[in-house]
Amino acid sequence: MTETVKYLLDEAHLPRFWYNINADLPEPLAPVLNPATKQPVTAEELEVIFPRGVIEQEISTEREIEVPEPVREVWRQWRPSPLYRARRLEQALQTPAKIFYKYEGVSPTGSHKANSAVAQAFYNKIEGVRRITTETGAGQWGSSLAFAGAVFGIEILVYMVKVSYQQKPYRRALMESFGAHCIASPSNTTASGRAILAEHPDSTGSLGIAISEAVELAAQNPDTKYALGSVLNHVLLHQTVIGLEAMKQLEMANAYPDLVIGCTGGGSNFAGLAFPFLGTQLRGGPKVRCIAVEPSACPSLTRGRFAYDFGDTAHLTPLCKMYTLGSGFVPPGFHAGGLRYHGMAPQVSHLTALGLIEARAYNQLECFAAGLQFARVEGIIPAPEATHAVRAAIHEAERCRETGEAKTILFNLSGHGHFDMQAYMDYLAGKLNDLDYAEEEVAMALAGLPAVA
Amino acid sequence: MTETVKYLLDEAHLPRFWYNINADLPEPLAPVLNPATKQPVTAEELEVIFPRGVIEQEISTEREIEVPEPVREVWRQWRPSPLYRARRLEQALQTPAKIFYKYEGVSPTGSHKANSAVAQAFYNKIEGVRRITTETGAGQWGSSLAFAGAVFGIEILVYMVKVSYQQKPYRRALMESFGAHCIASPSNTTASGRAILAEHPDSTGSLGIAISEAVELAAQNPDTKYALGSVLNHVLLHQTVIGLEAMKQLEMANAYPDLVIGCTGGGSNFAGLAFPFLGTQLRGGPKVRCIAVEPSACPSLTRGRFAYDFGDTAHLTPLCKMYTLGSGFVPPGFHAGGLRYHGMAPQVSHLTALGLIEARAYNQLECFAAGLQFARVEGIIPAPEATHAVRAAIHEAERCRETGEAKTILFNLSGHGHFDMQAYMDYLAGKLNDLDYAEEEVAMALAGLPAVA
Repeated sequence: MTETVKYLLDEAHLPRFWYNINADLPEPLAPVLNPATKQPVTAEELEVIFPRGVIEQEISTEREIEVPEPVREVWRQWRPSPLYRARRLEQALQTPAKIFYKYEGVSPTGSHKANSAVAQAFYNKIEGVRRITTETGAGQWGSSLAFAGAVFGIEILVYMVKVSYQQKPYRRALMESFGAHCIASPSNTTASGRAILAEHPDSTGSLGIAISEAVELAAQNPDTKYALGSVLNHVLLHQTVIGLEAMKQLEMANAYPDLVIGCTGGGSNFAGLAFPFLGTQLRGGPKVRCIAVEPSACPSLTRGRFAYDFGDTAHLTPLCKMYTLGSGFVPPGFHAGGLRYHGMAPQVSHLTALGLIEARAYNQLECFAAGLQFARVEGIIPAPEATHAVRAAIHEAERCRETGEAKTILFNLSGHGHFDMQAYMDYLAGKLNDLDYAEEEVAMALAGLPAVA
Repeated sequence: MTETVKYLLDEAHLPRFWYNINADLPEPLAPVLNPATKQPVTAEELEVIFPRGVIEQEISTEREIEVPEPVREVWRQWRPSPLYRARRLEQALQTPAKIFYKYEGVSPTGSHKANSAVAQAFYNKIEGVRRITTETGAGQWGSSLAFAGAVFGIEILVYMVKVSYQQKPYRRALMESFGAHCIASPSNTTASGRAILAEHPDSTGSLGIAISEAVELAAQNPDTKYALGSVLNHVLLHQTVIGLEAMKQLEMANAYPDLVIGCTGGGSNFAGLAFPFLGTQLRGGPKVRCIAVEPSACPSLTRGRFAYDFGDTAHLTPLCKMYTLGSGFVPPGFHAGGLRYHGMAPQVSHLTALGLIEARAYNQLECFAAGLQFARVEGIIPAPEATHAVRAAIHEAERCRETGEAKTILFNLSGHGHFDMQAYMDYLAGKLNDLDYAEEEVAMALAGLPAVA
């Protein structure tokens, strides 16, 4: 038995500024477009669904953006989150690599999502917003916004992908325990939902559909705004608190990562950990290999196209340039529900296209195996999403065993799996399969991409 | 909105010694008896099921007992656990009281049980034990021992009360994820289990039956020992790390408690928090009111008899002098499964009989209401067991609002409710009832107490 080492930052070192990678990009991001005019969207257009504080962050190119004190106050309940040296895992793998992981499962809702939920609820609160709508897949984001709404006294309405609503009643119970209202999507509460149900009465929903419903409701009600849990610049910005803390904690450990690894659905937990390191590299600092890990059944970065696409199914959102499998693509029902999104954050996509981020895909069986291997030595059951990062970290540590290199590996353990035990039960019982997507479905969805000059 | 204040101890302040209240008792504990001879049990008799390291602690009267370094190493993954000032709860209650809570839900298995599981697994490991048997009700103890077994490389066999085995598949999945083996009790793997099944084929089990099965198996196999998750002196001793940390953290907050509150099933989380404060009082320090909170459907301290009784149903254990409802009593199926035990720790019982601990009981509906009230302001969903402590803390804070007293209240939030969301769903849906026990069943069980001169 060897020591598990935990690096805890004093609260005084909780970051006061977020890091905005837009300040250091070698080429600027492609603008977000109004789908009707194909012109860049204006702040005024976005104000229909977002508070101004968030829109300013979305378009800012300032390197440092101040974290409001009330956000830091709520964060202090669980932040700075611990950084661990995975010594027992290293020993089990017989690797010369040093493996560190940042553990975001310590938040009240068990994942990194709470970081941005608190920030977004705050900006809505100071602008007098009464209600926020959102979508959720696996439920991590919905429960985080429900928590933040409870803290700031804002009503929360969550459109939950119907298959998750039915299969994950306990995530729903968590949202309802915090006082949020939860609706299975597609629903008959919106035109978008009714349109889907008219065509597919048995639809089990998708993130793309749930986003359409939440956006529609916000656009129609002046006292209601919409919040997104990933993909957009401001969400990734809020998550940089993860990497900024990790940098200071690695300093305590006298280490700097050769590899930074995170799982990617919309991209926010990966970006939150990786961008501060990548930014340091872009400003002339040490080079890091940043590895975005996606499920092989929804491989936007590794198999998608870098093109303008809608963020939702009903085409109510602006157009973003991103790696996408097509907004009409519905991924198969694998267990990492938080990674079932057709697109990828524009910033992550842009940096991948520039060759500054590597992407790779793993299937769910090898990820659950890695998750259990991790749990049995490190004691934490990873969320199915996070098992993708675990899988890649173990893979790289095994490579080090072969080459003898003592690399420093840092990965994001973005959440615990306490609400995902059915998936582990199914895996342990041999009931899980390696799902794959249908090539022809992606081809069809990509054929439907909007034409942008 | 006001600040949530978290008091974190540096790892350097992780206690190096446990506090043994046996050193400071005004009268010694009644001895544990061999049921056949009615004479005090010997260490040799206990060695059939327990490792020597644990037996020494069970009978020790040394005030300070050293925590082995390998135990502290594993603990450091989550300890020192945070102490919170519940400012948002205080504000919601409009109380002049200061409310602090020690949060044990940060452990890998989400409760204080991991503290003793790691210690017990360690003592078994150094004595070459290959396998440990145990029982579990709600699953907090079983999953904690499963975790500890995975860390130290010991096989874990858990007899899980059948009703929980069926109703809480995710707690079972957690144990199995850590590599433990889980059997629904009563089972046909032991004579105790077979005897119960012969008489009651549909028995849904009880902690008393599961203990009989686990003890029987350990007694019959030389490479196998038994571990208990509460009740006994050594378990309470291991949990004193909670109170010892809390004392230092309250010093940081420049506070000392007027009231110390914990829920009581077997008594270990309550004792773990309260004993260091109670010991200080017994040595002439400040007086604290220590309040043990039990479910009104299993009220051993408030309605039981202080007498010698068996710890299990099949009468395989020694006799302990404790508050008991009778070892034949099977509590109704309320949701705080960890509090469904017929007896109470001898140390807690003794101190209650001496008037040094107050006891009170609440029913489950008011406890779930308090748990939700807490979750909506503090962001943490308490385990059903822990809602009993929350209920009492709120009750006392409300009294302070009436009297205007600014008392300092400290309670143990012994675990989170991530694996208990069905209970919250049932509560939110209005499906829960206030269960009560049947007076005549307790009378019958008490009539069956063993005769001790």
